[in-house]
Amino acid sequence: MEIEGRHYRTIWLDEDGATVHVIDQTKLPFRFETRGLASVEAAARAISDMVVRGAPLIGVTGAYGLALAARQDASEAALRSAHAALLATRPTAINLKWALDRVLAKLLSAPIGERAAEAFAEAGRLADEDAACCEAIGENGFKLIEEAARRKGGRVNILTHCNAGWLATVDWGTAIAPIYKAARAGIDLHVWVDETRPRNQGASLTAFELGAERIAHTVIVDNAGGHLMQHGEVDLCIVGSDRTTRQGDVCNKIGTYLKALAAHANDVPFYVALPGSTLDWRLSDGVAEIPIEERSGDEVSFMQGLTDAGEVARVRVTPQSSPAKNFGFDVTPARYVTALVTERGVCAASEKGLRELFPHEASL
Amino acid sequence: MEIEGRHYRTIWLDEDGATVHVIDQTKLPFRFETRGLASVEAAARAISDMVVRGAPLIGVTGAYGLALAARQDASEAALRSAHAALLATRPTAINLKWALDRVLAKLLSAPIGERAAEAFAEAGRLADEDAACCEAIGENGFKLIEEAARRKGGRVNILTHCNAGWLATVDWGTAIAPIYKAARAGIDLHVWVDETRPRNQGASLTAFELGAERIAHTVIVDNAGGHLMQHGEVDLCIVGSDRTTRQGDVCNKIGTYLKALAAHANDVPFYVALPGSTLDWRLSDGVAEIPIEERSGDEVSFMQGLTDAGEVARVRVTPQSSPAKNFGFDVTPARYVTALVTERGVCAASEKGLRELFPHEASL
Repeated sequence: MEIEGRHYRTIWLDEDGATVHVIDQTKLPFRFETRGLASVEAAARAISDMVVRGAPLIGVTGAYGLALAARQDASEAALRSAHAALLATRPTAINLKWALDRVLAKLLSAPIGERAAEAFAEAGRLADEDAACCEAIGENGFKLIEEAARRKGGRVNILTHCNAGWLATVDWGTAIAPIYKAARAGIDLHVWVDETRPRNQGASLTAFELGAERIAHTVIVDNAGGHLMQHGEVDLCIVGSDRTTRQGDVCNKIGTYLKALAAHANDVPFYVALPGSTLDWRLSDGVAEIPIEERSGDEVSFMQGLTDAGEVARVRVTPQSSPAKNFGFDVTPARYVTALVTERGVCAASEKGLRELFPHEASL
Repeated sequence: MEIEGRHYRTIWLDEDGATVHVIDQTKLPFRFETRGLASVEAAARAISDMVVRGAPLIGVTGAYGLALAARQDASEAALRSAHAALLATRPTAINLKWALDRVLAKLLSAPIGERAAEAFAEAGRLADEDAACCEAIGENGFKLIEEAARRKGGRVNILTHCNAGWLATVDWGTAIAPIYKAARAGIDLHVWVDETRPRNQGASLTAFELGAERIAHTVIVDNAGGHLMQHGEVDLCIVGSDRTTRQGDVCNKIGTYLKALAAHANDVPFYVALPGSTLDWRLSDGVAEIPIEERSGDEVSFMQGLTDAGEVARVRVTPQSSPAKNFGFDVTPARYVTALVTERGVCAASEKGLRELFPHEASL
């Protein structure tokens, strides 16, 4: 998508094929900086420090990480060790495992001398596929927004949580892709952006993205969505998913579940946009089965922002003696999800709905 | 309650009867400072700037504000103008109107020369009554926690939102009073403290209070409560109310409604603790009838905290070009409230339940 008139993806290989570049998302919205990743360790650190984040982008970064590893040592032992190190960075997102498994299998079937080149090519294919997949999600979700606009006959208010925009993917985004498609088609819309504590991906990344694409939006605290829905100020919700079970339970950024409950209580459609790669067919009951990443309590106790002097700094927001706990995700059971929006189409949040769109994957 | 071994109330008259003192709650938890209020304007500013906050404390501060006004000019016109200025500071809390009306009526029936002295005496009575009322809420709510502890046979995990502790009242608090009573009775408990964006009264005030009283607690982001309830980590919720309708709808800090929905969905008892003075018998349907204060978007766009250098500063957390909206409260319909905890006892969140405890008030 566009930043100050120039088209970017979130990850790309430089022209000499030596270094992988990413946008440093920890600096947004205050600084736009890119960072070069020259080793598998750098790629792993970029994922665990959330320089890159978002399930699809994490997957592609992992793939490039394996490529960087292969250039150094393409032996099976080295590649398996790199796979394990990359996989350990973020335990919840299923795309990471999916992408790493795919690249590793490809490499192990290739002669050792060809592995590095093959790994970069495969990571590049993954990136292109991701962009195409997100654009298809955008087209499919666009129809839901178009329908809501037609039904309402006025500006459509959409609530989203966290950042499932193009910064979370290679391009287009998942939950935000339909919004970009709708805005480009001239539909009058406005986005309520949940700030999304503790890491504020909504207030920083989603607001930044929407601003750069000149889409009307308002930042709200995570507490406000229920009130807005009670008062008819939200026409639909659309969020992403980091992992989706075969019965349609979705695991997304902490707090998603609360918005789904409010949408359900107020008859507001609650859509979840996801690429098929987030489907985990082994799992059924998301609340019972999906492991939830617990991150440092410092993300709760401190908040990062821009000082009056124009520096990016963090401030402590809790008493020094008060402990904090930090759960990265929660699970929204399928019964609160109006529909799933995938690259293959829109379906009910159920095993039946998913099997119809993904018959081959479901039977693996 | 105690701060570093010394007993404090949140508001008191100094010994010479000249100045009203309050704890400056905008500096907590990082600085403990008190502030003297020498005029009605200073009292009004203390309320609107949230130097004092919490429905009961706002009411008592308003009463002292009228007393400060009466000392300057005790004419009916001056008192009515002071009443209007104080009432305009916070439109949602019903206690403020209740306290101001009570003091004004008392003053207007007294000879003009006695009004200032009478006003200070009446404000002092209001403060004492509030402390006694909150302690009674504590005793009544204590039984619910005791019961939960007996049922569970282990540590009771309690979730609370915002600050309905002693800092929101004159002493004891409303929602936190039962927790203080239970802790002093030796019940093993732990409190999940919602940070409560945008003003972080949970992370700053509730965590500070609980720490000062040495009660086990953990700060979480507002997004986390649903996940905790899904996983059995919350045995009961208890929150305050700024205004309560006769059918038992409660208006409390923005985000309360989302926690009530999650408690309802996960069979977690959701208690609301309130003094009878927050009851608004004129209103029935809280969602339709209670006006919700909208505050400056800057409270969303900026976050206050302590810098590494030990200064209290604010940082911007949204892009400069992104607007923000800031709703102060939301309404939780009675059907999501397990019971109301008042100074007169515990009752169902219904007109019938409230009428049984407040027969006289209900018929006014």
